[in-house]
Amino acid sequence: MKIIEVKVPGTAAGVYAIQIGSGLLGSIVSEVGRAFPRYSQFLITDSALVRAGHVEKLVGSNSMAGRYVVEPGGEASKNMATVTAILEAMEACRLGRDTVVLALGGGVVGDMAGFAASVFKRGVPVVQIPTTTISQADSAIGGKTGVDSSVSKNAFGTFWYPAGVYVDVAALATLDERQYRSGLVESVKHTLIADAEYFEYLERNLDKVLARDEAVLMEVAGRNCRVKAKVVEKDPTEKNLRRVLNYGHTVGHAVESASGFELLHGECVAIGIVAAGKIEEAMGLVKDDRLGRIENMLKRLGQPTQMPANIDKVRVFELLKSDKKAIGQVARFVLLERIGRVHTSKGEYAVEVGEAVVSGVIGGL
Amino acid sequence: MKIIEVKVPGTAAGVYAIQIGSGLLGSIVSEVGRAFPRYSQFLITDSALVRAGHVEKLVGSNSMAGRYVVEPGGEASKNMATVTAILEAMEACRLGRDTVVLALGGGVVGDMAGFAASVFKRGVPVVQIPTTTISQADSAIGGKTGVDSSVSKNAFGTFWYPAGVYVDVAALATLDERQYRSGLVESVKHTLIADAEYFEYLERNLDKVLARDEAVLMEVAGRNCRVKAKVVEKDPTEKNLRRVLNYGHTVGHAVESASGFELLHGECVAIGIVAAGKIEEAMGLVKDDRLGRIENMLKRLGQPTQMPANIDKVRVFELLKSDKKAIGQVARFVLLERIGRVHTSKGEYAVEVGEAVVSGVIGGL
Repeated sequence: MKIIEVKVPGTAAGVYAIQIGSGLLGSIVSEVGRAFPRYSQFLITDSALVRAGHVEKLVGSNSMAGRYVVEPGGEASKNMATVTAILEAMEACRLGRDTVVLALGGGVVGDMAGFAASVFKRGVPVVQIPTTTISQADSAIGGKTGVDSSVSKNAFGTFWYPAGVYVDVAALATLDERQYRSGLVESVKHTLIADAEYFEYLERNLDKVLARDEAVLMEVAGRNCRVKAKVVEKDPTEKNLRRVLNYGHTVGHAVESASGFELLHGECVAIGIVAAGKIEEAMGLVKDDRLGRIENMLKRLGQPTQMPANIDKVRVFELLKSDKKAIGQVARFVLLERIGRVHTSKGEYAVEVGEAVVSGVIGGL
Repeated sequence: MKIIEVKVPGTAAGVYAIQIGSGLLGSIVSEVGRAFPRYSQFLITDSALVRAGHVEKLVGSNSMAGRYVVEPGGEASKNMATVTAILEAMEACRLGRDTVVLALGGGVVGDMAGFAASVFKRGVPVVQIPTTTISQADSAIGGKTGVDSSVSKNAFGTFWYPAGVYVDVAALATLDERQYRSGLVESVKHTLIADAEYFEYLERNLDKVLARDEAVLMEVAGRNCRVKAKVVEKDPTEKNLRRVLNYGHTVGHAVESASGFELLHGECVAIGIVAAGKIEEAMGLVKDDRLGRIENMLKRLGQPTQMPANIDKVRVFELLKSDKKAIGQVARFVLLERIGRVHTSKGEYAVEVGEAVVSGVIGGL
């Protein structure tokens, strides 16, 4: 087992630990009980985790104050109505501030559970137990919580850091192949923004990753956490540096909305990474064939690298204007200097890109 | 005009200003525009403020990005559904992080607008413009936001400090008499927990307060802000000291819920203050006739000092067990040592009181 500590300036605890291992689920409830003696534990999960047997493994014979099972799981449930239902379920259990929320599941469960924890009685601790490639690499770690609005992704939410994170790579064994593969796009993103050596490691070990080799998965989890922790520690509330984690996400989120969430997040980010690469080329930031290497890796993962025919490109362009990073209705993009290093302009990591360049790239994608 | 600065440890700005004066409304939008250049301004208010002409005074010929009018105003609208509607209205205006929320109204508007601001795009600034006796004394100042659940008050919310507060005592002129009087109970509470001299000032000047004398109202507003700011600065997220602001609120909130929100918040806190006084007597903390003086002041304000006959006392007792301050289902109370000073036990400001004492006091109220 590996433990990575993440510093969080400005929070009471100041630090939390990410534990990475295989077969961790069974001991979490008692560990949390030791960390929060006399607290009630409330579980938030989704129906897929129940079916896969992970809830049973986690809860075992432990007594918990209550649980909320998101049904159906997935992006369509990630909204204020579900968060409200979770909060009312916690109220119905007569829980107080001495409650710790356990979030067992993928990004949707983790984002909503974190959001619910952050507003229940004005904030109770949450322990994240991510069970998907995407949440283990990304959403469970950085303290961002939230839900979608009727028009955009993650429109409403909070910054709320977990009291602890458990990354159990054994939980990935039951994940369906499409989810498994698309979630790995966040790992690709981490290599691109921060660690060229990690990019090469992934190139060499991608077959083992696809075969769900636990030793390689633990190595990947550790590298993801280190990349993400380093960024989040320096800029917990996304004033500037943290925006690098949005690489590929500006176009990615717009495509996701435009697809009516038929495409998975990682698939959309794959398209967004290619879009960012083409914007970099259009802006003269590229001197080598890096985009070819990146596209090749995404293809090996079975990810789309072009805009699917059924996506309305005009709608994508419209959605870019309501992006959270937009200032005065001009979308801003995170771009690469080279693999492993993000481009900056006047100290800013999210840079303005002319509408003509953006529409040209979207049009040609 | 008076300006009081409130320090808020752990926030980016570290401080915000409360401006107290008469006839401030007309200049706020342009002042906020100078403080947040290039930001969109979104107004949250309620229909009573529109009818009273205050929205017109505030907005004038300024252009704003949009507005949400809570309808009907009041506690019945203070729930997740209204917050969700506010957030979706902001999304519909295609607002980004460069948005500042203006909250014009009483506690319900301020609490919901603060909550909405704290979660919109994971947090945008809010400027509080309280227009009632209760919000000017209390809710607009301390950074607490929230809504009610189906079973308890302020069950869900955040700590989100205003970027600025404007207390315009002229806005009180249009407030209806019952609201006006009940809101003054929070001022009485401030005298009790922190400032014996202020209690005597109120005793001497209560007739002028009731006549809405602006000079006296500005003095009262200043004293309220100083009491509240001092407490909030020392304990922004209510670990301990801040609980003193809940004096009278433990029973108060329970009565409010049990009344189906037919009683106003201040009226319930008046009953809660008397209940706390009787608990103090039962616990041997009282050596003088202070409760008589307090009851007299509450009566001069036209506030109830006994449990109304239509309130189910058993329900009140049940609700006390789900109080946010409860630990292990035993309610805790803030109690007075004397007028102007809160009782502590082992360094704690919220102390456990035996069920027998509580049920005896509730039963006899």
